[in-house]
Amino acid sequence: MKTLARHLIAELYGCPSDRLNDLSAIRSLMLESAELVGATVLRHAFHPFEPDGVSGVVVIAESHLSIHTWPGRGYAAIDIFTCGGLDPRPGCEHLATGLNARSSRLQEILRGLPEELSEHDLLLPKDVQVITSMAPALPVTASS
Amino acid sequence: MKTLARHLIAELYGCPSDRLNDLSAIRSLMLESAELVGATVLRHAFHPFEPDGVSGVVVIAESHLSIHTWPGRGYAAIDIFTCGGLDPRPGCEHLATGLNARSSRLQEILRGLPEELSEHDLLLPKDVQVITSMAPALPVTASS
Repeated sequence: MKTLARHLIAELYGCPSDRLNDLSAIRSLMLESAELVGATVLRHAFHPFEPDGVSGVVVIAESHLSIHTWPGRGYAAIDIFTCGGLDPRPGCEHLATGLNARSSRLQEILRGLPEELSEHDLLLPKDVQVITSMAPALPVTASS
Repeated sequence: MKTLARHLIAELYGCPSDRLNDLSAIRSLMLESAELVGATVLRHAFHPFEPDGVSGVVVIAESHLSIHTWPGRGYAAIDIFTCGGLDPRPGCEHLATGLNARSSRLQEILRGLPEELSEHDLLLPKDVQVITSMAPALPVTASS
């Protein structure tokens, strides 16, 4: 079984605080994101913090997704780690849109055995892609 | 609350396959690693794969730890993501030793708001430290 995996590391900035504190909505977004990248969800665990913030992980057959939010700072840290040839990016776009991020910082790295990393000519293990992009500006609405 | 966090990304190579397929031992190692970095464990979820392999995540008050193993390839992918000023490295060393890794590849990145990343003068956000090291060669013993 191949070990080569893609690991997308995303910082989402400028998110409305109510969205970053809505555990139920965040869990739905994370499970939808897993589905969007074509993953099979196996388990998930989410935790609310006092006074605010949410952490959550989704174990998928192809590795995992995770999120940690700082509502007072408008910040969410997201990881989407996918083996099996899945592209993590649609999941990240879904989260950025759903959390109404005003900007983001993305890095993608490859994981796996050295011989598989070195065979991959599109993205070398030492490459880190840093992209700053603006997500679509959605109206801020109260979470249901 | 500060958002600055350290994210240690480790590839462990040359691990004995029986260790990488022992869910109970891996869960113990992960929980011990969380304790070693000074984290507070909140939730955890581990999953065994057929024919082999384990995935697991530990949600901590300071973010998360994750592991994915490929026993047939001797490979484990580990993430230790810690905010709150915790140093993730002792946890990684514990896993490398416990899984009897022959070599490893470590990268550490910083996560957080841009203004906090830029204030941190020890490790800039664009820095990726890549270290290849040999873990102590421990005798391979059957997992209990």
